[in-house]
Amino acid sequence: MREYIARRFQNRLTGLALNTEALRRYNDVIDLSIGDTDFTTDKRIIDAAYADALAGHTHYGDPKGDPELIAAVRRAWKEDFSQDIAEEEVLITTSSCMGMSQSLLGLLNPGDEVIVFGPFFADYRDQIELAGGVPVEVETYAEDGYAPRREALLAAITPRTRAMIVNTPANPTGAAYDLPTLTMLAEVAKERDLLVLADEIYTRYLYDGVFTPIRTLPGMAERTITLNSFSKNFMMTGWRVGYIIAHPELIAVFKHINDALTYAAPSVSQRAAIKALELRDDIAEKYITRYRDRVLYAADALAALPYLSVVRPRGTFYVFPGVEKTGMDDRAFCDFLLEKAHILATPGSLFGRAGKDHIRMACTVSDEKIREAMRRFEALGKYFEK
Amino acid sequence: MREYIARRFQNRLTGLALNTEALRRYNDVIDLSIGDTDFTTDKRIIDAAYADALAGHTHYGDPKGDPELIAAVRRAWKEDFSQDIAEEEVLITTSSCMGMSQSLLGLLNPGDEVIVFGPFFADYRDQIELAGGVPVEVETYAEDGYAPRREALLAAITPRTRAMIVNTPANPTGAAYDLPTLTMLAEVAKERDLLVLADEIYTRYLYDGVFTPIRTLPGMAERTITLNSFSKNFMMTGWRVGYIIAHPELIAVFKHINDALTYAAPSVSQRAAIKALELRDDIAEKYITRYRDRVLYAADALAALPYLSVVRPRGTFYVFPGVEKTGMDDRAFCDFLLEKAHILATPGSLFGRAGKDHIRMACTVSDEKIREAMRRFEALGKYFEK
Repeated sequence: MREYIARRFQNRLTGLALNTEALRRYNDVIDLSIGDTDFTTDKRIIDAAYADALAGHTHYGDPKGDPELIAAVRRAWKEDFSQDIAEEEVLITTSSCMGMSQSLLGLLNPGDEVIVFGPFFADYRDQIELAGGVPVEVETYAEDGYAPRREALLAAITPRTRAMIVNTPANPTGAAYDLPTLTMLAEVAKERDLLVLADEIYTRYLYDGVFTPIRTLPGMAERTITLNSFSKNFMMTGWRVGYIIAHPELIAVFKHINDALTYAAPSVSQRAAIKALELRDDIAEKYITRYRDRVLYAADALAALPYLSVVRPRGTFYVFPGVEKTGMDDRAFCDFLLEKAHILATPGSLFGRAGKDHIRMACTVSDEKIREAMRRFEALGKYFEK
Repeated sequence: MREYIARRFQNRLTGLALNTEALRRYNDVIDLSIGDTDFTTDKRIIDAAYADALAGHTHYGDPKGDPELIAAVRRAWKEDFSQDIAEEEVLITTSSCMGMSQSLLGLLNPGDEVIVFGPFFADYRDQIELAGGVPVEVETYAEDGYAPRREALLAAITPRTRAMIVNTPANPTGAAYDLPTLTMLAEVAKERDLLVLADEIYTRYLYDGVFTPIRTLPGMAERTITLNSFSKNFMMTGWRVGYIIAHPELIAVFKHINDALTYAAPSVSQRAAIKALELRDDIAEKYITRYRDRVLYAADALAALPYLSVVRPRGTFYVFPGVEKTGMDDRAFCDFLLEKAHILATPGSLFGRAGKDHIRMACTVSDEKIREAMRRFEALGKYFEK
């Protein structure tokens, strides 16, 4: 069959995935490898979707998105970030993952380069390559709280550089860029005429400070493609609905690509999203504070262990400790962690060069399991005593 | 903004779309341009999706698809077509549109050619081009009931030809291939080592004969990529869920691409689809017989008009009359039809060279509106009397 497969995929079948084999090996595995909220979608959202489905929202609808959802997105953006968004600047997408792929497909010519700040969400690489582009990793460091360095960014820019992906709060590090960092990125984008693909799906998961979308910085609206999603902010991963905010001429291209891919986002999910936006402060209070408590608890517990090094997350539900002091690399440590503590984590090297010697843990299991996981981590200390 | 757009899209913003301007022009427009079922999804399906959402099916789930849905697809295929399908041969997709794009992205190298039989579903062109391929139209003719001719197919095959798209029952013509035609296509595929992308989303809309999937013909399972969807067969266009059946090695590649696009099909929609498959004979009896009655009524009414030429559809909800005898081309006739009869139809030339001088009408409005549309068509006869 191999000869039937496009050459660019013949040797490319890795990626983040459920480690079902590992889950079967022990009956008490604590799975910290899943970037999915453990809460079921709020019942008020499901109820609204159900009522609207019965009322006839089971058709394609407008391929640009449900007009009521577009209006709700614009209203929420204005209320939350004091910026006007025109109707023609919004496209509803079948997840922000899809939004990112559509954007890259619409922007890149073969060989165009896109800067990603490592450690970075692993799918960016595939999304860029699927669009014919080349990902260029600019490494960031624990000692800087994973904020990009201006000189490293400038050094990576070539005549083929078209865009940079800015993901804050960030998967996998839990980092969040402060205003000086965002301003630096914006200045470089303007000076070097780059687009910014702003992956902001963890908007509500910022535990320290106020979230500033990069498109609200001076002169940035016209060169920012904002990608958002209902998955994480609203505990709606399974509904597959997100949105792009961008210049109307770019939206027209992304919409054209949408027609060939999923044509329209799922209608019932879009109705759910309308309700979700209405409840957004309540949802954040009810669920996301739980993630904040878990992730900070876990980060502090891990920071107390001499064999790990931890940057306290400022957002998301991930902790990304370094394992250099164990003498193992990240894959070896993940194997060790599974074998000795029955904890499943993700090797950091899946998130780029800058991720090596780190592991990603998603605090997407119950508070009790998080506590149990921390007890197991503590018990591992005996292996690393001098 | 144009300079930021990928070159391949800078001049490509056409396609099938809602003609909202036309709809606003008159208050009694009968819109026959929409390839969407007018029935809301059956309440039993919505109820099942709701119950399952409340029970926690609001998460990503397995990116290959809900295991229960995969099992249901395999079971239904076995019952309906007496062919065993392995679990690794199925991938649940976010619509068959997405399934087609994923397949093409996974198969085509730049410049590879894909044969489409015109008149063809317009999105194929964009889907092939998005994957770097080149669509090659092989024309089919009303006099053959739109069945492809072997000699025309052979003449179009070059060393770059990788696959042909076989869509039966067919949008926009309403044609359906009989067994000799399918056998001819299968023989050519085997002789010339081509893959077949079988777009079978109108499986249940065959009004004459028994549906035979091309993958069930001898030696075809290994070279057929079957694309199906719940949209048309189950009145579920808004739910965005479909599936691919193909060789496990191809499924692995399509799944990899899926990860970068929508990651997983919507979970709630997948639960709806499980219920839909369970009810499939009932849904066909309750809804699709209505489309059969409408489309055959419309086709016969139009066939009685001396200024049109009609091939009686064998499937789908489309009628595709020729307008040559009016002396107008298809775009002019659509404008005339809107102005004089307030009927919105789609110009055939959007479906390839072979579609010119035809119009597509989707019988996706109420029986009463179909009858009213036919009265208006009859009244137009006065413009064409000698």
